Amino acid sequence: MINADLIIKNAIIITLNSKFDIIENGSIVIKDTDIIAIGKTEDIEKQFVAHKKICADNKIVMPGLVNTHNHLSMTMFRGLADDIELQAWLNKYMFPAEAKFVTEETVKLGAEIAMVEMLHAGTTTFNDMYYYEEQVAEVAKKIGMRGIVAESFIDFPVPNSATPDVTEKHTRYLYEKYKNDPLITVGVAVHAPYTCSEELLKRGAKLAEQLDINYHIHIAETKWEYDLIKKKHNLTPVEYLDKLGVLNENVVSAHSVWLDDQDIDIYARRKVGVAHNPECNMKLASGVAPIPKMIDKQIKVGLGTDGAASNNNLNMFAEMQVMALIHKLWNKNTTVIPARTALRIATLGSAEVLRLDKKIGSLETGKKADIIMLDISKANTIPIYDYYSAIVYAFNAAHVTDVIINGQEVMRNDIILNIDEKDIKNKMNDLARKISTAIKIVSSQ
Amino acid sequence: MINADLIIKNAIIITLNSKFDIIENGSIVIKDTDIIAIGKTEDIEKQFVAHKKICADNKIVMPGLVNTHNHLSMTMFRGLADDIELQAWLNKYMFPAEAKFVTEETVKLGAEIAMVEMLHAGTTTFNDMYYYEEQVAEVAKKIGMRGIVAESFIDFPVPNSATPDVTEKHTRYLYEKYKNDPLITVGVAVHAPYTCSEELLKRGAKLAEQLDINYHIHIAETKWEYDLIKKKHNLTPVEYLDKLGVLNENVVSAHSVWLDDQDIDIYARRKVGVAHNPECNMKLASGVAPIPKMIDKQIKVGLGTDGAASNNNLNMFAEMQVMALIHKLWNKNTTVIPARTALRIATLGSAEVLRLDKKIGSLETGKKADIIMLDISKANTIPIYDYYSAIVYAFNAAHVTDVIINGQEVMRNDIILNIDEKDIKNKMNDLARKISTAIKIVSSQ
Repeated sequence: MINADLIIKNAIIITLNSKFDIIENGSIVIKDTDIIAIGKTEDIEKQFVAHKKICADNKIVMPGLVNTHNHLSMTMFRGLADDIELQAWLNKYMFPAEAKFVTEETVKLGAEIAMVEMLHAGTTTFNDMYYYEEQVAEVAKKIGMRGIVAESFIDFPVPNSATPDVTEKHTRYLYEKYKNDPLITVGVAVHAPYTCSEELLKRGAKLAEQLDINYHIHIAETKWEYDLIKKKHNLTPVEYLDKLGVLNENVVSAHSVWLDDQDIDIYARRKVGVAHNPECNMKLASGVAPIPKMIDKQIKVGLGTDGAASNNNLNMFAEMQVMALIHKLWNKNTTVIPARTALRIATLGSAEVLRLDKKIGSLETGKKADIIMLDISKANTIPIYDYYSAIVYAFNAAHVTDVIINGQEVMRNDIILNIDEKDIKNKMNDLARKISTAIKIVSSQ
Repeated sequence: MINADLIIKNAIIITLNSKFDIIENGSIVIKDTDIIAIGKTEDIEKQFVAHKKICADNKIVMPGLVNTHNHLSMTMFRGLADDIELQAWLNKYMFPAEAKFVTEETVKLGAEIAMVEMLHAGTTTFNDMYYYEEQVAEVAKKIGMRGIVAESFIDFPVPNSATPDVTEKHTRYLYEKYKNDPLITVGVAVHAPYTCSEELLKRGAKLAEQLDINYHIHIAETKWEYDLIKKKHNLTPVEYLDKLGVLNENVVSAHSVWLDDQDIDIYARRKVGVAHNPECNMKLASGVAPIPKMIDKQIKVGLGTDGAASNNNLNMFAEMQVMALIHKLWNKNTTVIPARTALRIATLGSAEVLRLDKKIGSLETGKKADIIMLDISKANTIPIYDYYSAIVYAFNAAHVTDVIINGQEVMRNDIILNIDEKDIKNKMNDLARKISTAIKIVSSQ
């Protein structure tokens, strides 16, 4: 008998491995941080023992969801100004609110609320782009969540950085601090082609290449951006970035809504990964990214919620469902992005985009144990004829009961173990009171 | 002091009255089935006493959601065959499955699961179109839910009716049985212009007019239907129905996706009500109904989920959010269907469509007490700057804790009082096993 640390038994295991195996009455064996075996419970019980067991009867057990694009701490601005025009939203609300309220302390608090929300909704890995990212990393380590943190390069002074030199210094510091961390990966974040100079776009790319880390950037989110770059450079945003030499397999491209066919070819050739954000793109009337075409060209596609200020939630189950629906409508084809594809995008596909797919994204021997469990006993998921269909179209965030990340229990029976939820909620409500006295709130009409 | 039966106190009351009043630290006084007072807790306490009080501290209290289009018992086919072409879905799966499995007993079971799901998700009123509707009505009465039931007229024999004569007899029987019922209203259901003869379409209208009850019908759901009617009659589906003289204020028109501008004018002139089903219309790639144009023309617009076989959930919170998002995208305008409008559509707007707005849809003195309560203490709804934005974009079905219908508590702390949930779930899982051995399930690829 082989000794292990934890066995999850009697589960319906959705592996998302290359054969899309589903194992009913299955068990997963975890040693330290890793999955060391997976199979039928009766077979596992003959070979493994562990001092700790989780009975997952009546549970679906699947890989944790991977959120490829976020600004976690913007939870503090959730719903501050909705249903207004995009430039007014940015210039009259978001930028002034950020200038006044984004501090080391509020970033920490915003990240705490965000991670609590994400864990309850089954997300185990995030990809963040914001400021004071050391705070985000430390919250993640405390709670036990996996994430990529990246300080934003942009052409104007930001809360924790007056110049790109400072941002680069921050990034290098974070890289050194976390390079051997089991949960935290550091990336480079460059805001967008319309907010960063050519020099800055290239500087970020060079840094990412040098450190072999991801280059997280918003590309072609709106028609406005597409037209602006086209007018300025007579190139599409993607052509422009390609001409600058910044597109390669390190790139995590958020949004990517306004891509022509030749842009998609460039993405395929440069092995760019895409962080698809359908809810935010709908809410801000930006458009629909050509995801089915990207999939046809074997481009890496992952899913993300974007920040809570523009979504207004970090719920990957809702995002996954909306993704499966919107492309059917947009392409006038009921067979586009079927449920299994949607779930793969939200797990292994997202891990591929973040270049973490050797470690996470599926439940397989040798991978890190990033696992969520879903209660299948609620009326709204009964009956289940096909697990993928059920997970994508009927299950939602509220069905998540348990979360394991890197082999460690992080949430058990809907209770997050390493944080005092009540305390951070109170603090966030206090902060929101201050923000709402300083910023005129837009009331929905 | 005035004696009442129930006082809900210390709530954040979203009234949805004509001034859109929101009352913080508010109380609602209920006597028998009715709201007899609503106001600040301190004022209410000076005037009313009740033997029963509910402390709604940390709760949003709002009107129950009103689902204007459903086939409740199709929960038994939830996820049976997804992501396939529409005609194959209907002809290879739904019609054979219905012919084999729709019985008095399974309709009852399907309706039980549906109502449990809906109550947990904050829906207090449904509008159903299916077969064996007496079963649906009896389940609703037992649980304490408000609903409209209607037997389907269609040009082929259906499970409980070989001919339209039998269906008319059923409808008249149901009408007599429930005409004084506090919860159940009876309607006429006529399937669609492409599945019913002119004679049948007119017969249903005549019956509805004679009994002064609703005429529930699918209109212009798909481009295929639009083209078919156009080819056959050289009229749009709406023009065709108007020519037949069946369009009037009794009509609850589900879908209404393929409407030209002159069709919208006809709806306005005839005072037709629309049951909008955005998720189903996306999933089946049908299109997007021109809801903003309808609102401009003062057409009554409500929201519905359609049946669980084509959605695959009966979650009005998700439906409301998707509605608010899809019209922004479709109209390239971030200000379309703002949160407050979305919430009004899902409550009072839906009540108007069902011609129940004198009784329900808002929290006002003199209306029936159909009330839901939302927990505001979860991380994913913190902070709240604007209640409408929060309810539409951040809250979801899982935040509903309590449901009161017609003055009676139906769900308390997430427990439905008048049904054994576990028993019906087991029965539904048993039925699904039988269905899945008889019908070849489509596995998601």
